[in-house]
Amino acid sequence: MSSISILGLGAMGSALAATLIRKGHEVTIWNRTLSRTEALAAIGATVAASPAEAVAASELAIVCVLDYAAARAVLASAGDALRGRDLVNLTNGTPDDAKSLAAWVEAKRAHYLDGGIMAIPPMIGEAGALILYSGSGALLEKHRAALGALATCRLLGEDPALAALYDLALLSAMYGLFSGFLHAGALVASSGGKVADFLPLLLPWLEAMNGTLPDLAEKIDSGLHSRNVVSNLAMQTIALENIVRASQERHISPDFIEPMRQLAAARVDRGHGGDDISGVVELIRKQK
Amino acid sequence: MSSISILGLGAMGSALAATLIRKGHEVTIWNRTLSRTEALAAIGATVAASPAEAVAASELAIVCVLDYAAARAVLASAGDALRGRDLVNLTNGTPDDAKSLAAWVEAKRAHYLDGGIMAIPPMIGEAGALILYSGSGALLEKHRAALGALATCRLLGEDPALAALYDLALLSAMYGLFSGFLHAGALVASSGGKVADFLPLLLPWLEAMNGTLPDLAEKIDSGLHSRNVVSNLAMQTIALENIVRASQERHISPDFIEPMRQLAAARVDRGHGGDDISGVVELIRKQK
Repeated sequence: MSSISILGLGAMGSALAATLIRKGHEVTIWNRTLSRTEALAAIGATVAASPAEAVAASELAIVCVLDYAAARAVLASAGDALRGRDLVNLTNGTPDDAKSLAAWVEAKRAHYLDGGIMAIPPMIGEAGALILYSGSGALLEKHRAALGALATCRLLGEDPALAALYDLALLSAMYGLFSGFLHAGALVASSGGKVADFLPLLLPWLEAMNGTLPDLAEKIDSGLHSRNVVSNLAMQTIALENIVRASQERHISPDFIEPMRQLAAARVDRGHGGDDISGVVELIRKQK
Repeated sequence: MSSISILGLGAMGSALAATLIRKGHEVTIWNRTLSRTEALAAIGATVAASPAEAVAASELAIVCVLDYAAARAVLASAGDALRGRDLVNLTNGTPDDAKSLAAWVEAKRAHYLDGGIMAIPPMIGEAGALILYSGSGALLEKHRAALGALATCRLLGEDPALAALYDLALLSAMYGLFSGFLHAGALVASSGGKVADFLPLLLPWLEAMNGTLPDLAEKIDSGLHSRNVVSNLAMQTIALENIVRASQERHISPDFIEPMRQLAAARVDRGHGGDDISGVVELIRKQK
């Protein structure tokens, strides 16, 4: 069993610490406000008086705070205690945040692994929890016993930005799903229907649509959007206009549908009416 | 076996006619431009010279044209031939389009069933094809042999607007999914990653997120968005801001994410930071 320090005891940091304690690891905790440490101390955590003390106490220090500015402030206050240490940062942020903190940590002669937690706190330590990692693969291997106790570990590569990037990519897909679902729910509710009763239609439909994503992925990867297209953008713009009109009829704001309607129409206007829906990606990503 | 007339031979109308012929029904076809009738005539369809002739020729007439204005024009030109006939309209449109055409058809003493096809033309007649119906349930029962040859039939109710409404609700959910997927794909591609290689992470994640929809559906139905919330809007706005910032870092337009970011922030500003993501629906639907 290993010794791990957890810096930051929000809902997620507390779940990380509690899981490691429950699985028999030696856990030291630090939090800016001391009251958060009490419940964990009661089940066996050692409370450190400062970030420096926490970092020095264990083979591995895991930082999980509000944002990267807070993560950097906490680590900066650890001062020389950082030298030679192994640090895992599970704070939410952007790829550039991660890249910048990795460089800062490495300049302090510490080893850095960035992680993106694809789970909510109650899932930590349970089946289905996933943490994406990027940065030092050696660090992940060295501490796999502790990190594997938290979640399934997936190393994306040595570029420390990748975990944040893929984390946010998964969240983007989720928020798209939720955006469409909330719009669909508003339409169903507008006729007095129950959204719960709509699920037996919706869930198999979404499953079928997930089945179209591999084909769209290949089109995005190749940039060839007009090969083997069954329903092209010129046809799909009609459906998108109908959704917007139906929403207006029902006094539902079309906010969630307008971006796709407008981008699909713009792609058609530029002569790509024969594209699959994947062609719209060319209007949101940086042009090569 | 029954006799059916198909008015409108676009990709979908042609697929409907071909499927019915293949399954042994007696099919009469009409199309504004005659050239579209040739392939179907070659496999056994009777070509009608006018909408009136097509409507008069069969026990059931199915209209499948570009939009409801075209459907109404075609039916208007059938004149007195409509009286007492059974009409199924599978044209794409809005709930109000359907309601209005149903009233017009019924004023002509014809019987009306509206349908929304949840399939692409090659799926017609195959397993997995679904047509949502609303309007005359008696008409659906009477012609179930022919209509069941096209797709699984699901009657939503006697209100003729329901098929269009639920059709567009399913498409809304699909476009939300695609919006999020394209944004995620742009993020992954920005690091040189392949979207196809991202699917083994994405597809199980989307499946897990589909599993959260029943809980969100209940929250939309009840309007009680702050019960049993694991990740509340105040926390989720941070993730949404990170997605937008990461997109800007990568020169990706945040168009697909901005509506959710803005609406979630607005909901938090109005004092509902403890809501689940479902609470955002209150900002897009008509207030009771």
